[in-house]
Amino acid sequence: MIKDVAMSKRVAVLLADGFEEAEAVAFIDIMRRLDINVDVLACKDELKLNSYFKVNITADYTLSEKFEENYDAVMMPGGPEGTANLTSDKMVIDFLKRHIDMGKYICPLCSSGAKVVAANGLFGKHKYVSGPNLYKNFDDGVHVDQKVVVDGQFISGKGLGVVFDFAFIVAEHLIGQGTEKGSARWQAQHIDYDGWPYAE
Amino acid sequence: MIKDVAMSKRVAVLLADGFEEAEAVAFIDIMRRLDINVDVLACKDELKLNSYFKVNITADYTLSEKFEENYDAVMMPGGPEGTANLTSDKMVIDFLKRHIDMGKYICPLCSSGAKVVAANGLFGKHKYVSGPNLYKNFDDGVHVDQKVVVDGQFISGKGLGVVFDFAFIVAEHLIGQGTEKGSARWQAQHIDYDGWPYAE
Repeated sequence: MIKDVAMSKRVAVLLADGFEEAEAVAFIDIMRRLDINVDVLACKDELKLNSYFKVNITADYTLSEKFEENYDAVMMPGGPEGTANLTSDKMVIDFLKRHIDMGKYICPLCSSGAKVVAANGLFGKHKYVSGPNLYKNFDDGVHVDQKVVVDGQFISGKGLGVVFDFAFIVAEHLIGQGTEKGSARWQAQHIDYDGWPYAE
Repeated sequence: MIKDVAMSKRVAVLLADGFEEAEAVAFIDIMRRLDINVDVLACKDELKLNSYFKVNITADYTLSEKFEENYDAVMMPGGPEGTANLTSDKMVIDFLKRHIDMGKYICPLCSSGAKVVAANGLFGKHKYVSGPNLYKNFDDGVHVDQKVVVDGQFISGKGLGVVFDFAFIVAEHLIGQGTEKGSARWQAQHIDYDGWPYAE
């Protein structure tokens, strides 16, 4: 059953001060609606975070507490200061590199695609999308202007307005496609989101 | 300027334990992106809230701290336990009644339309939309199956998947329509949300 698959999957959401809270919370919400396990990890020494628009959010664990654990997918939201803080954090980059080497999904949304993944040369020849024009600052990866870009283990999303599309596509890569109760397509209908799947 | 109008507007977001966190956070985020003032109010004796999908969120104030203040709009998210807690809270209902009497915008998303506003007989003859089939339990108001329903001072949204549409429509009622920088339509493009405005 799709729910059993979901319950076996684990996703790490990496949050640093200044993160885009709606990108993070909508993604976490969709994952948990689908019974996928999510650890919300603060990339700092305490759990309490400062977000882009001052919603008071506290993580489940610090990244250092969970650094040795392996996840099926690693997600990062945008937010200008949030991605500046992620990209300059050696522990974040080491965590990403290990998950890339293990073939796990790397899922940057908004500016994290350019400013964290491309800035550290981690996309290689893979395609990705990121926040507006930020890709021009980095040679790594191949920028494609789409809502969501899937290339191998890299699943990237353009910005806040595509967060549901992005979350459901990440979910389908973790739990498989389907239309039955518990599937990403069922849940999209359940929450009255009609933007995804794109016209088929 | 539209920003000056926005900065003069105040929105109260009412959160009770069990609230739908992505509905709340995406709405707050869009308001604050547009420079509209938001107070996140906990409808309980402490600021720390339990959310539907266990994201740790803390309010700005308790409702009792801000009960005497008047807002231009009052928003409530869904979440089964959240709306059960809101509807049984006399302070919440008194706060809503006073804002209705003052002609302010009342903005329920998802189940809060039926379970809080209709359940307390506050819609009168106004049209609204709410979570699936919940309207059948209540005689108050006239249910219409649309993404977002605007009828006078009542602006209601169907569910999580329409949260951006809902937030931008509430914003346009507060700050006016426009396409210039700082307007709701500009911000929708800025965050790469292409679902709204609906086909025109």
